[in-house]
Amino acid sequence: MSPIRALVFDAYGTLFDVQSVSGLARELCGDKGELITQLWRLKQLEYTWLRTLMKTYEDFHTVTRDALEFTLSAVGVTPSPALCDPLMQRYLHLDLYPEALQALDALRDRKLAILSNGSPDMLTALVRSAGIAARLHDVISVDRVRQYKPDPACYALVEPALQVRRDEVLFISSNGWDVAGAKRYGFQVAWIERGDPAAVPQNSAVGPAEFFRLIRGRAEQLGHEPDFRVRRLTDLPPLVGT
Amino acid sequence: MSPIRALVFDAYGTLFDVQSVSGLARELCGDKGELITQLWRLKQLEYTWLRTLMKTYEDFHTVTRDALEFTLSAVGVTPSPALCDPLMQRYLHLDLYPEALQALDALRDRKLAILSNGSPDMLTALVRSAGIAARLHDVISVDRVRQYKPDPACYALVEPALQVRRDEVLFISSNGWDVAGAKRYGFQVAWIERGDPAAVPQNSAVGPAEFFRLIRGRAEQLGHEPDFRVRRLTDLPPLVGT
Repeated sequence: MSPIRALVFDAYGTLFDVQSVSGLARELCGDKGELITQLWRLKQLEYTWLRTLMKTYEDFHTVTRDALEFTLSAVGVTPSPALCDPLMQRYLHLDLYPEALQALDALRDRKLAILSNGSPDMLTALVRSAGIAARLHDVISVDRVRQYKPDPACYALVEPALQVRRDEVLFISSNGWDVAGAKRYGFQVAWIERGDPAAVPQNSAVGPAEFFRLIRGRAEQLGHEPDFRVRRLTDLPPLVGT
Repeated sequence: MSPIRALVFDAYGTLFDVQSVSGLARELCGDKGELITQLWRLKQLEYTWLRTLMKTYEDFHTVTRDALEFTLSAVGVTPSPALCDPLMQRYLHLDLYPEALQALDALRDRKLAILSNGSPDMLTALVRSAGIAARLHDVISVDRVRQYKPDPACYALVEPALQVRRDEVLFISSNGWDVAGAKRYGFQVAWIERGDPAAVPQNSAVGPAEFFRLIRGRAEQLGHEPDFRVRRLTDLPPLVGT
């Protein structure tokens, strides 16, 4: 394999914990908060895929808001601005995974970047809020091509932005579908397997968080396996020899 | 609106009940049967969308099998042929919704067809098993364009196949994302709303069947509304004046 000159991170779920909206969701929506958190994230991704397929791109802010409004209506909660505004605002200040800063610092002799579905304004706010802007060579939004991952056009943004060849890129994601898309494009790929693969349900009585984990927590059967499987971001430096 | 010369039906979930695998799933997988049924269907659709986006089409038989193997592994069941073969076989003999025959008969003065993600062999088996082949002018598989709905290329198969203009087509689906895709393409569209929109959960403690219904049972917020919302297939004849 080629030496790795650039590490490109997915944002939502990889550097930033999308589950960190759940506290506010519970605060605002009570007993339905957990259900709303999981349904919202599922719909958000579905809408990115469906809009790319339908060729009716809207930016990630719009898609995320649409998914939130769908979700609230589905569970019988009126999608008022009093609920939607603070939940959307929380999306601009998601928690960084606890080990992220240490990992980015250990990798600082390579080009580091984000490639994300997020719209430029969302990513700017997120990176600023987390205090990692100075550590990143670029923050690349798929908005430049008006398609969402895993469309190959998204991954193709990396090479010109970072001035590297695609086989010199290590792409890092915790999302199985993103791993498959990046690998199919031709990057080297590391999958951050955050869930516990040994944890399996005993029967059909699983709640929304567990159901979400079953849908999203495993490697996808899409014909493209990651080069590396790790448990956390700080497992990356030894892989690239730093 | 133009007079409707052709009615084109989605297959899975619209004419045929995909939930009819659940009996066999419970028989073969016990307490995990219900969970497997819902997760399988979600993954199956995800894989159609993701493979179309990644430009790595495989036919619906392969995608359905991959989704089943993913699902069984996720819930801690070995995806052996002894389980997968009969479940896949059941997919070739899904139950027709009880009112489907009566609806097709009442509409027989129009061109009737299916436009489905199903591979040609799956659709042939399904239509034969249900005894509706003679009632259909054509059974159109997206396999002809090697992309899945809601990519516009799929809906574009209808006009040459049936020799009608797109605004003379009434497309019928119970799948909200399919409704949005067909409407965006330019068909008249009827949404079969099989769930009860008034049924909302009381809290986050919902099982997989309810979670599935929340994800799939409502109109999607994708910027395209159906022309007609009906509860069952036999509501269609009055809409088109037969």
